[in-house]
Amino acid sequence: MITLLTDFGTADYFVPAMKGVILSLHPPAQILDLTHDIPAQDIRFAAFTLSACYRNFPAGTIHVAVVDPGVGSARHPLVIATEKYFFVGPDNGLFSDVFAHEKNARIFQATNTEFFRADISSTFHGRDIFAPLAAWLEKGVTPENFGTEISDVVRLNTPQPVCENEKIIAEIIHRDHFGNCVTNLTANELAPHEISTKTKIVIGENVVQQFGTHFAQATNPRELFAYLGSAGFWEIALWQNNAARKFVITRGTKIELLKF
Amino acid sequence: MITLLTDFGTADYFVPAMKGVILSLHPPAQILDLTHDIPAQDIRFAAFTLSACYRNFPAGTIHVAVVDPGVGSARHPLVIATEKYFFVGPDNGLFSDVFAHEKNARIFQATNTEFFRADISSTFHGRDIFAPLAAWLEKGVTPENFGTEISDVVRLNTPQPVCENEKIIAEIIHRDHFGNCVTNLTANELAPHEISTKTKIVIGENVVQQFGTHFAQATNPRELFAYLGSAGFWEIALWQNNAARKFVITRGTKIELLKF
Amino acid sequence: MITLLTDFGTADYFVPAMKGVILSLHPPAQILDLTHDIPAQDIRFAAFTLSACYRNFPAGTIHVAVVDPGVGSARHPLVIATEKYFFVGPDNGLFSDVFAHEKNARIFQATNTEFFRADISSTFHGRDIFAPLAAWLEKGVTPENFGTEISDVVRLNTPQPVCENEKIIAEIIHRDHFGNCVTNLTANELAPHEISTKTKIVIGENVVQQFGTHFAQATNPRELFAYLGSAGFWEIALWQNNAARKFVITRGTKIELLKF
Repeated sequence: MITLLTDFGTADYFVPAMKGVILSLHPPAQILDLTHDIPAQDIRFAAFTLSACYRNFPAGTIHVAVVDPGVGSARHPLVIATEKYFFVGPDNGLFSDVFAHEKNARIFQATNTEFFRADISSTFHGRDIFAPLAAWLEKGVTPENFGTEISDVVRLNTPQPVCENEKIIAEIIHRDHFGNCVTNLTANELAPHEISTKTKIVIGENVVQQFGTHFAQATNPRELFAYLGSAGFWEIALWQNNAARKFVITRGTKIELLKF
Repeated sequence: MITLLTDFGTADYFVPAMKGVILSLHPPAQILDLTHDIPAQDIRFAAFTLSACYRNFPAGTIHVAVVDPGVGSARHPLVIATEKYFFVGPDNGLFSDVFAHEKNARIFQATNTEFFRADISSTFHGRDIFAPLAAWLEKGVTPENFGTEISDVVRLNTPQPVCENEKIIAEIIHRDHFGNCVTNLTANELAPHEISTKTKIVIGENVVQQFGTHFAQATNPRELFAYLGSAGFWEIALWQNNAARKFVITRGTKIELLKF
Repeated sequence: MITLLTDFGTADYFVPAMKGVILSLHPPAQILDLTHDIPAQDIRFAAFTLSACYRNFPAGTIHVAVVDPGVGSARHPLVIATEKYFFVGPDNGLFSDVFAHEKNARIFQATNTEFFRADISSTFHGRDIFAPLAAWLEKGVTPENFGTEISDVVRLNTPQPVCENEKIIAEIIHRDHFGNCVTNLTANELAPHEISTKTKIVIGENVVQQFGTHFAQATNPRELFAYLGSAGFWEIALWQNNAARKFVITRGTKIELLKF
């Protein structure tokens, strides 16, 4: 199985062109969309999204990720093999969160052009390089065949929560479709059983004091509500509403957790 | 075959996570998107959409619908078996229009946790409960195995046209992508052969007097036009334009049909 | 394999209804979305998109395209056979760019109603005519069986670059998801090796003087940048930005190429 994650949107010929190339090289390939609605050039959004779902797939799945503002430049195409999965995409930080989970990842610079399309455009490596690489992997070519194994790749600087006096300084790392805001706080920083009436999260001029496990518990629907979300991070939401928009919360917004 | 209908949008990890879970449990599963663009938490929109297309699928299809503002609360997961199809989703009214068509539906409360994922989040039952239920159904587990058969489920109050003196009082029940407005009037209230030069639909301060079978018949492109639509309801549209936006028509907008 | 291209959007029952109809007639059919986000009724956008990717698919692929403002009127359904592909859709110009590439296309008016659904709505031929035609084609029915071969079809007037004194007068034919603007200039009008420091493209009050092969070469990110794009046309872009929006460039905007 081959999954695709891009910032190509769904209105243009980009995504079907990639699928057509894969299916022309390997007609039985099963192709599945992770998403094509990554905001344009937003590598960090892509890294988070990939990280939050790639492990739900069967062993052997090939995850192709193409958010590639440096297309055509010197950045290399990568083929990555982990214990259960393969990854294909540009060396620009897209796989940072994957590397954080997959300590034994083997990384190959795909320089062997025999596995590319004959004509390579300078602006659409999704179609001309990454799609063919995925098709050849699925056909059974082993990663070693694509190029040299390397260890030095681009890794995004992922913000970590920091303990400071009585506070934990953290930040918003993602906004989802519903306007729910994902923080970089996990159960390590705040276990559900640690929550007391004094626990609060300060976010700008607002304070989150409602904590729970699911949305319907928000007793005051006009106040922000925090819960340990399905990707393993604490999230901040507004009951049946868009917290990010109403409270102008964006990725990078600093927050403070006060536990007691 | 398993279809998915959600309000998850397509930018996040939600939909691929569901698909990955299904495919991990049952790799040969064929998964098809109904839509993931249901407006957030809009159960009524979801019920209409599901109702308008589920019967186009082959017998045996499993339709999974997850628009679930009450996720994590006491509302139960349902597995429904009708003569030709299965349905999986929360007990919150999503299947109201299905029940209206399927008089012999058997409904099961899926309480048997052995068919759920091992770790169940409180905010993403699509991935942790509904996707696995669909996979197990597709693998051949019969609905009885998931839990107790019940008869009392949440049903939305579906607005029906009412005859009042010379008028039929009805309303808009859906707006589609083109801005065409679906009413709850069917051929029972107005058969195409009953249309005369006196037939009209009053909608706020506007009157629809153009009736026909297809868009190109609208002789005055700036005036609203009514036709019996592909879901079996009379619809109100504007030629190559967005009637809902131009005339500020929303779901719930009352209309009056005057036949003679 | 059957691909679908429509302006139906993804929120409504239109696309899944088409898929359900195909799969009911031919359960093993493999269906793939080209796009459903063609702007409403925009035949020209659809023609460009189809043209830019249909050749990436395996031989035998059936491409169904439904952007159909004349649905229900006298315009005919077409089944087209080329050397490698089949096409199904309304006779309204959708296949103009395909015909330009496929000199030996055989075109059939699909008038044989035995291959349609039993009940044909007047507003949704995607579901009731085009989806069944594709399913029957995939099942092995030959194009001759659907109706009479014809030669006279609707073709859009495709704008061609014109040489005038020292200039080539051309225009913008497409804007993509990133806001990159596709011109109708190809390597025939401007080969990459012909570019000199005097080469420029005038677009309204702006002048493009940066030429290259890929985005990262744009040395001045606030100035427009031109490159030979992946569909074979020169494109005008803004580094990591939306050129169409920033410079108010739309389809039909005239441009002038000055080579020397």
